[in-house]
Amino acid sequence: MITPDTIDASNRAFDEAWRSDYAHLDEQLRRRGLDPDAVVEQVAAFEVAAPSWALGTGGTRFGRFPGRGEPRDIFEKMQDVSVVRRLTGSASRISLHIPWDEPDDPRDLREQAAALGVAFDAVNSNTFQDQAGQTSSYKFGSFQHTDPSVRKQAVAHNLHAIDVGAALGSKALTIWLGDGANYPGQTHLRKAYERVRDCLADVYEAMPSDWNLFIEHKPFEPAFYATVVSDWGSSLMLARETGERASCLVDLGHHLPNVNVEQVVARLITAGRLGGFHFNDAKYGDDDLTAGSIKPYQLFLIFNELADALADGALPASPSYMIDQSHNVKDPIEALLQTVDRLQKSWARALIVRRDALAHYQETNDVLMAEETLREAYETDVGALAAAARKRLGGAIDPVAAFRASRYREQVSEARTGAAYVPPQSL
Amino acid sequence: MITPDTIDASNRAFDEAWRSDYAHLDEQLRRRGLDPDAVVEQVAAFEVAAPSWALGTGGTRFGRFPGRGEPRDIFEKMQDVSVVRRLTGSASRISLHIPWDEPDDPRDLREQAAALGVAFDAVNSNTFQDQAGQTSSYKFGSFQHTDPSVRKQAVAHNLHAIDVGAALGSKALTIWLGDGANYPGQTHLRKAYERVRDCLADVYEAMPSDWNLFIEHKPFEPAFYATVVSDWGSSLMLARETGERASCLVDLGHHLPNVNVEQVVARLITAGRLGGFHFNDAKYGDDDLTAGSIKPYQLFLIFNELADALADGALPASPSYMIDQSHNVKDPIEALLQTVDRLQKSWARALIVRRDALAHYQETNDVLMAEETLREAYETDVGALAAAARKRLGGAIDPVAAFRASRYREQVSEARTGAAYVPPQSL
Amino acid sequence: MITPDTIDASNRAFDEAWRSDYAHLDEQLRRRGLDPDAVVEQVAAFEVAAPSWALGTGGTRFGRFPGRGEPRDIFEKMQDVSVVRRLTGSASRISLHIPWDEPDDPRDLREQAAALGVAFDAVNSNTFQDQAGQTSSYKFGSFQHTDPSVRKQAVAHNLHAIDVGAALGSKALTIWLGDGANYPGQTHLRKAYERVRDCLADVYEAMPSDWNLFIEHKPFEPAFYATVVSDWGSSLMLARETGERASCLVDLGHHLPNVNVEQVVARLITAGRLGGFHFNDAKYGDDDLTAGSIKPYQLFLIFNELADALADGALPASPSYMIDQSHNVKDPIEALLQTVDRLQKSWARALIVRRDALAHYQETNDVLMAEETLREAYETDVGALAAAARKRLGGAIDPVAAFRASRYREQVSEARTGAAYVPPQSL
Amino acid sequence: MITPDTIDASNRAFDEAWRSDYAHLDEQLRRRGLDPDAVVEQVAAFEVAAPSWALGTGGTRFGRFPGRGEPRDIFEKMQDVSVVRRLTGSASRISLHIPWDEPDDPRDLREQAAALGVAFDAVNSNTFQDQAGQTSSYKFGSFQHTDPSVRKQAVAHNLHAIDVGAALGSKALTIWLGDGANYPGQTHLRKAYERVRDCLADVYEAMPSDWNLFIEHKPFEPAFYATVVSDWGSSLMLARETGERASCLVDLGHHLPNVNVEQVVARLITAGRLGGFHFNDAKYGDDDLTAGSIKPYQLFLIFNELADALADGALPASPSYMIDQSHNVKDPIEALLQTVDRLQKSWARALIVRRDALAHYQETNDVLMAEETLREAYETDVGALAAAARKRLGGAIDPVAAFRASRYREQVSEARTGAAYVPPQSL
Repeated sequence: MITPDTIDASNRAFDEAWRSDYAHLDEQLRRRGLDPDAVVEQVAAFEVAAPSWALGTGGTRFGRFPGRGEPRDIFEKMQDVSVVRRLTGSASRISLHIPWDEPDDPRDLREQAAALGVAFDAVNSNTFQDQAGQTSSYKFGSFQHTDPSVRKQAVAHNLHAIDVGAALGSKALTIWLGDGANYPGQTHLRKAYERVRDCLADVYEAMPSDWNLFIEHKPFEPAFYATVVSDWGSSLMLARETGERASCLVDLGHHLPNVNVEQVVARLITAGRLGGFHFNDAKYGDDDLTAGSIKPYQLFLIFNELADALADGALPASPSYMIDQSHNVKDPIEALLQTVDRLQKSWARALIVRRDALAHYQETNDVLMAEETLREAYETDVGALAAAARKRLGGAIDPVAAFRASRYREQVSEARTGAAYVPPQSL
Repeated sequence: MITPDTIDASNRAFDEAWRSDYAHLDEQLRRRGLDPDAVVEQVAAFEVAAPSWALGTGGTRFGRFPGRGEPRDIFEKMQDVSVVRRLTGSASRISLHIPWDEPDDPRDLREQAAALGVAFDAVNSNTFQDQAGQTSSYKFGSFQHTDPSVRKQAVAHNLHAIDVGAALGSKALTIWLGDGANYPGQTHLRKAYERVRDCLADVYEAMPSDWNLFIEHKPFEPAFYATVVSDWGSSLMLARETGERASCLVDLGHHLPNVNVEQVVARLITAGRLGGFHFNDAKYGDDDLTAGSIKPYQLFLIFNELADALADGALPASPSYMIDQSHNVKDPIEALLQTVDRLQKSWARALIVRRDALAHYQETNDVLMAEETLREAYETDVGALAAAARKRLGGAIDPVAAFRASRYREQVSEARTGAAYVPPQSL
Repeated sequence: MITPDTIDASNRAFDEAWRSDYAHLDEQLRRRGLDPDAVVEQVAAFEVAAPSWALGTGGTRFGRFPGRGEPRDIFEKMQDVSVVRRLTGSASRISLHIPWDEPDDPRDLREQAAALGVAFDAVNSNTFQDQAGQTSSYKFGSFQHTDPSVRKQAVAHNLHAIDVGAALGSKALTIWLGDGANYPGQTHLRKAYERVRDCLADVYEAMPSDWNLFIEHKPFEPAFYATVVSDWGSSLMLARETGERASCLVDLGHHLPNVNVEQVVARLITAGRLGGFHFNDAKYGDDDLTAGSIKPYQLFLIFNELADALADGALPASPSYMIDQSHNVKDPIEALLQTVDRLQKSWARALIVRRDALAHYQETNDVLMAEETLREAYETDVGALAAAARKRLGGAIDPVAAFRASRYREQVSEARTGAAYVPPQSL
Repeated sequence: MITPDTIDASNRAFDEAWRSDYAHLDEQLRRRGLDPDAVVEQVAAFEVAAPSWALGTGGTRFGRFPGRGEPRDIFEKMQDVSVVRRLTGSASRISLHIPWDEPDDPRDLREQAAALGVAFDAVNSNTFQDQAGQTSSYKFGSFQHTDPSVRKQAVAHNLHAIDVGAALGSKALTIWLGDGANYPGQTHLRKAYERVRDCLADVYEAMPSDWNLFIEHKPFEPAFYATVVSDWGSSLMLARETGERASCLVDLGHHLPNVNVEQVVARLITAGRLGGFHFNDAKYGDDDLTAGSIKPYQLFLIFNELADALADGALPASPSYMIDQSHNVKDPIEALLQTVDRLQKSWARALIVRRDALAHYQETNDVLMAEETLREAYETDVGALAAAARKRLGGAIDPVAAFRASRYREQVSEARTGAAYVPPQSL
């Protein structure tokens, strides 16, 4: 329902203002010795995957307030993702959650996805909830469990997720565990770690040789006293003990108060184990808000570390980028459009940092000018540049406006009737 | 199923050790110039209410792992509360959640409760979730909502909760609102406050003249950017603008990191607006763990403020005490038994602080000895004293042991079959 | 040494780029229905005071690394402030610390200041340190002290600060107390509060009737367990008990982790007690970094509350604005120039929020568009606008560049020899 | 001045109560199947070192309030430490700070120390302050500095500290660096890490083969944006890259809010890199309060991890224990006596955890009983046991009371006149 024509129609309305803004930005960047076209190209190459669970309205333990026209199955979710892809030129991959979105026939799903221009990113396993028909419960953990049969079941579930992913064309598995304890004494802290390490080794062993394993840490929730994979230090220890293709996934909301997340990113680059990102934002805990909505400067500083490491070769390639948000009060598709725009702009800002100047000021301890060099890039209004990148990919100058004009939501709301859809909670 | 005989049988097993411990404690306290019998009496007088929603297994947004034999309705919940009452001598009141545990016939419920020795504490309203059949949604708030019809519906719900409570013999309403915003700009911060203030006034106006209104603050969740009643300062402003019988309720898990909660309690005492407590404990956010399980010293220091203020008359009477926990990995009845024991012990420790000595050291700035005076009380093993208080009330020396010996859970597990019970989330 | 000629010379170098940037910004703002000239005027009217203690290099308890050419006395500090005033058009007032910068002859100082175009803002008292010749020590507090003679001495010091301020033309007193406790038990929490309240009343009583009293709260440091005036709630209680001209001063670094500071500002506006600000920024504690250097979006959101409240009349006039930073690794004058530029830009961004659109989206719960309306303003590159405001006042397009070109620091470094100057610590 | 007679006299006053308490504790522990004598022996073997900088009154950046009779040089400090040793039976080692307490003649100092029964623990280097006569400044860091000559100077200082320590009989060097940045952009995060890593390698290389290197992390202060060795993950990466005898030192106050410190300890044990501890306590930042004064349960849980790991062989030997506190409002000697008593009691509580029962409950996921097994030990009043251990070593039942009775402070206050002593800040 989003066609090139819809997009064109929307773009025409914004074209004049965009041309003026872009022309001025072009002048500004050239004045600074930068090449605007090269930046547009790099922004156009930015790819971020959408998670299958972010297309429905999310919620908290206190309730959920569904929206209209939510997708009822994985096919409708792919349909929605393809809308984001068309309007932004990014988000051409979807990250699947097993079992929430497990397809009956993976091969069939893969074909349907291909028809929509959507491919499959990392698959996500789930051993933090019990599923119908499951033999053992994860009430007291999965990989950390004292009972070997529970650990075996949890490992088997991960192997199954790999199988599904392999059939869909995925090349990576993301493991986030809720394992931990609510009370001092509940678990033996060292043994719980050792059991998690051993299960990861079992999964890694069985993984195809061209797959990567992403280990995602989180400080708390659902465990409220101690969590096994709670911080980047634990994640790194585990990745190194697991194997070369095991690395750390950084979720932007999975940090205790005041952690310097960009430095965590820098450390993992140095350690050679930065695997990927879950983009979102947070003020208090794992709030799963829109990326950059609370701490936009931090998001820029993270991208700045990435741009810098890609420039000097410390990062051989971009880590895996994925959105992981809970859209409780926004239309999920609109929220994703807003998010991709924001990520494209943050990436653009990181790309226009004058690295030679920065290096010079750092070398000579000119603190103020080093800071101002970052701020010059951060405070540049790069909206027109992100729009240029999207236009180059056939997308919209203003994706949310184009989406609203398309009346896509209204149309699917009529089509998507029947049994009320209850989307799973956000990770 | 818990009879005086069951309790006697259990107590016999612990009697010898208890006698020895109590005799030594008696000697210790007399050595310090304290009267052990008077303390036992004050501990026996300690009353804390159980919330109707804490009898089932709780959960997080990531899932819930039900236990066996959970109560299926409010009657079975009262039955479970009466077990706690018998074994601890406390918890003879239940705090009802409307609509989760709304009775069809309040008068009938009141009679059944009386037969079990259980009465009704403050009622809790709920405008943070939508209920079936509701006209307007609380997706964007209730008392803060920009649409007057939503605010009207939310006020009406509170008046209904008062009606139900009045029929049950309650004398107070507790209001906790999820109202707030997930994103900067979403709400007008000042106007949202003013609308909440006005709705509270409407509820207060309609409340019977012998009722109290408790305003409960919480810094975040479900709103993740700004919450209207986020801190004790906002709660106090609202209570003062609402009326004399409006006061502040302190939930021990509703504070940002590093807040000095005992000083918050002291401030509300000074302001004359300390209404009550929701007991639980937390390490990270609103974790709803067992009271005193993470920060036992803080719990003591809070009780110390209360004991001190009751002693010097700053508090005319005890505030309202209620447990508000989420029992995710413990048997709910066992968790309540453990909690009451812990609260009785914390209260006992606060009662044995040598206040004259403390005042002397404070007056003369003998920091070390002032601190040690608190520690002397805190480090005293008052287990035997709490047991003595329970024995005086016909309860158990070791409530959890007595409960396990009674095989109550096994018995109700057989009886409570039928449709799987899904308890509501914890507050 | 900073003359109109120096400034002109510097501006000429940036003129072309500035003209281009301003022309485009002018177009952008008009496109949004805004009046750029009116905004420039409002930015030009923005006044922020410099504190007398921020002209020397600051430090931490671990050491201080002095810079060259630091001012040796209050006259040289005024000289440095006048540099900031000339280059930015703001900072024409200085906030004096008593006794660190107490003049021998206030009337003489006032004249000298006038000659430099500098006036005196709020005076700051200090009862958190002992001074030579003092009778009693503040080791265990000042206003909270159990010994009435210590409290009397502390009140007398405040009255003296008022006298000095009155002679200089100040109209306000800022009181920040370090009073509190390092250990549980050290102080009686309620009585400590009451003694502080009573001392504030004594100071207020003696204050001239056209003076204002600003009460500044801070959660911790130097007291590490409990601080009497720890949060806005305590500050508000005290202001209300003290009198009508007592109000709350918000220091941007004086908040526990994750506090929503813009909502604190909104609450104090509602309460009618927002007195003023100490601008700085912080990541961890009271870090005293350059305003907006860590959380630039928060700074914008705070200014947004102010702009909104000034627009709808909730704030009758601007609160008192003051910088309070510790310049440990930057040249103090350069840091102040950077700070004023950043404040001017933040204020400009708040002024270009399209308030009607925002109100509409808030009213209709269009969360995404409400958020984007704030972001539109925040992401606008307003550098040229702030420069235009400075130019209108005779200041520099790029104040730091103009300052460096002037070689002011090098010149005063030669003049300011003699006994090494040890500036006091930052507040 | 503290003689066996002084101690005996004090002990006589407490003997009767102690005998009664100990007899009852003995009965309690035997009831639980524990051997009280063995625990007394293990507590008597507990050794913690005192830092040379904790004998004078500490302060904050806002000031310092000296006490009477503070030691004026390292010899008087050793004298004071020997008082702690005599009264507690622990603290027979002192940890020296270079250059604050650098001796003119190390061999002479060693002999004098031996005469007082005091030996030398790890030496501490200092590259976070500039010293008189130093060639280069550490304003912009030491090991991280971009200028190789500054790094060389910092490494040379560490080698010098090793030389001094070797002459005194020390066998370890503790390195804590203030290196970091106050502003985004100030340093290149990855390169700063690499330079620190390389300097550590240089120091390690030059260290005697029987020495250990302790790397101490801290999240912030004096750097307020990014600190190179900020967390246990960075510390572990560095220790592993440095060499086998490099390990991590955990200061209890060097953690961001809500970090689970006992799990950090467990991780470092698993990694085989737990080198030592700096004991203190904190509510907000690096508050340097008396150990166990704010979070006594956390202190117990840390000792519980150590006792557990020593029991199962994961820790081959006790890590290095040191006190690192700032005594701002307490008499420094009294504060150390209180601290040692508290550490002895915490260690005793960890030793009486019934490990078999705990393991059983953990294995069977009996969460409540596992927790209660820890609480049983934590809530045991082990004061008499710690006193028994001290008595066995010739120490006091109540060290502070014995100290006060000895009038040691009054006596040295008379002797220690002359030039006012300004002790350095606490780490």
